Amino acid sequence: DKARRNAEGMLERFHKLGVQLRPHMKTHKTLECADIMTGGSRRCIVVSTLAEASFYADNGYDDILYAYPLPFDKVERCAELSERLSLFHIVVDNRLALQQLKKRPLKQGKIWDTSGVELTGIYAHCGNTYACQGEEQIKAVAQETTTIVLQFMEKLKAAGIQGVKSSIGSTPSCSHPVPDMAMLSEVHPGNYIFYDVQQSLIGSCRLEDVAVRVLTRVIGHYPHRNQLLVDCGWTALSHDGGGRLPTGYAIIEGHPELKLLSMTQEHGRVEPISGKLDIKQFPLGSLLTLMPYHACATAMMHPVYFVRSKGKVIDTWKPTRGW
Amino acid sequence: DKARRNAEGMLERFHKLGVQLRPHMKTHKTLECADIMTGGSRRCIVVSTLAEASFYADNGYDDILYAYPLPFDKVERCAELSERLSLFHIVVDNRLALQQLKKRPLKQGKIWDTSGVELTGIYAHCGNTYACQGEEQIKAVAQETTTIVLQFMEKLKAAGIQGVKSSIGSTPSCSHPVPDMAMLSEVHPGNYIFYDVQQSLIGSCRLEDVAVRVLTRVIGHYPHRNQLLVDCGWTALSHDGGGRLPTGYAIIEGHPELKLLSMTQEHGRVEPISGKLDIKQFPLGSLLTLMPYHACATAMMHPVYFVRSKGKVIDTWKPTRGW
Ligand SMILES: Cc1ncc(COP(=O)(O)O)c(C=O)c1O
Ligand SMILES: Cc1ncc(COP(=O)(O)O)c(C=O)c1O
Repeated sequence: DKARRNAEGMLERFHKLGVQLRPHMKTHKTLECADIMTGGSRRCIVVSTLAEASFYADNGYDDILYAYPLPFDKVERCAELSERLSLFHIVVDNRLALQQLKKRPLKQGKIWDTSGVELTGIYAHCGNTYACQGEEQIKAVAQETTTIVLQFMEKLKAAGIQGVKSSIGSTPSCSHPVPDMAMLSEVHPGNYIFYDVQQSLIGSCRLEDVAVRVLTRVIGHYPHRNQLLVDCGWTALSHDGGGRLPTGYAIIEGHPELKLLSMTQEHGRVEPISGKLDIKQFPLGSLLTLMPYHACATAMMHPVYFVRSKGKVIDTWKPTRGW
Repeated sequence: DKARRNAEGMLERFHKLGVQLRPHMKTHKTLECADIMTGGSRRCIVVSTLAEASFYADNGYDDILYAYPLPFDKVERCAELSERLSLFHIVVDNRLALQQLKKRPLKQGKIWDTSGVELTGIYAHCGNTYACQGEEQIKAVAQETTTIVLQFMEKLKAAGIQGVKSSIGSTPSCSHPVPDMAMLSEVHPGNYIFYDVQQSLIGSCRLEDVAVRVLTRVIGHYPHRNQLLVDCGWTALSHDGGGRLPTGYAIIEGHPELKLLSMTQEHGRVEPISGKLDIKQFPLGSLLTLMPYHACATAMMHPVYFVRSKGKVIDTWKPTRGW
């Protein structure tokens, strides 16, 4: 329900601004989330790997943008996707990449756009929004990126290059868009379907918007160390965030007094931020609920997601993996 | 070849000491490595998850030790494995866990050992060897752990508890065993089949013993930032080590002057430790070879391993995953 609310909120926000939303799939890599994020259109998405591109292409998606500086070993796979799909966009940031494309002309009457290779759009991520704290700072970066991109579009026009699209976006900037973003063609955030503790600290969302949890079980009591052991290690949560939260590697829902201090491959050590642990509150076998620092990194560790609605697991969703 | 050499070295070391080697599978989780580590016996292994236990049981392995404080939700799966296998060992560190076992008597004439539930061995990991630097410190910790375990065995004997096995082991201590370890029943290291940069810094191995690499491709030149971009992010290497090496998150083979400064999901930023980057040395599309900080964490990110011998990829090995 939270994921759906986050995704529908983003669709509505950019529908109102008159800007095409092109959601990024890298956070979840599932068909189900992609359907929610595209409002069922199955068109106009971004991917971070060719494994994702093929997965979505195989499942009826089209108009896919591979937002990655073209790796030269992947020109052939990109060409095949271009030949299969009505629209497959690739990103280059180097003249040599253009030469690589020209060496592999497309079959079936297709071309790398209109004259061999032509610029169809410019893409900026504004990842520097991740250093922001609060809406005001986010909006300042969103404004700066938008202004720079729009100025660049003016220069292109002045040089006689017309009809070029513009796309910016990160989850922070697209959660708090500035009015000038209405002059862009597209935005491409991705994380927002889940959000996470990091996004709540940046100010992209409220903590209650975070749609991902890792359930973990208490498996050890170590009163002499003032610690609990839980069955969540870095194989289930990832090391992302480096434990820098006051509550360590995650937030333990309902227990702001606890810290996930460290993890091994399959264990987590939990202790109170201060004072003595009340072990009776946490019987062996009981569950704790972790809110991850970075949803993309945590989701990546799981071969299946359990989908919960109104207190029940109602479905399981399987992400694609690999490259 | 390196993995085989590492594994055969460990077998030989403990064969000479007259101690049973019970290798841990968690680093690789493949049948092929398990065969090498058990010298083809397919008996006497340790696992960190029930997914591994089932995977090995399904493939003809037996005498499997699940080295994990019994999670109460997994008693049924443990019971099933006990009923299927001739030997399935579980670890408890709490009286309540014993009660959980007694609630689930085994079928097929089997029992949780001889009288309902009985202690058959004690297991210590000596993970504190990971704070060591050099053989001398490692041996001191190995000696300390061995002494404590042997003293505990004496106390058990004095209390009339006979025939209890003893097992210790981490990769550092088992790479440099002390003579007293000959009095133990078993050792259970795991990482040594691959080793990694961390182990070389601890002093468990030489850097040239490390058997795992991540190949990555140069995909961007950013001379204004004095940086290269490579196509290895944390989905391929993991965040383990936190970038604390002088060379960042990994060692770039043949390039001690370079640092893997940071990673995003699918990108890595490489820069010189000092001075100006000679970009001509690293053409777009060329390959760099990363030696991971922690082989367990890096291997975990991959659905398949490419096996290289004498300069050629000769096989692909598929690990099991999940829980
Ligand atoms: C190239 C690119 N585009 C879009 C996104 C989506 O941004 P966010 O994760 O902030 O939603 C990312 C995220 O890393 C990205 O790398
Ligand atoms: C319980 C247990 N036994 C054995 C091992 C294997 O030790 P190493 O990884 O040092 O080889 C580990 C590793 O973490 C472990 O947790």
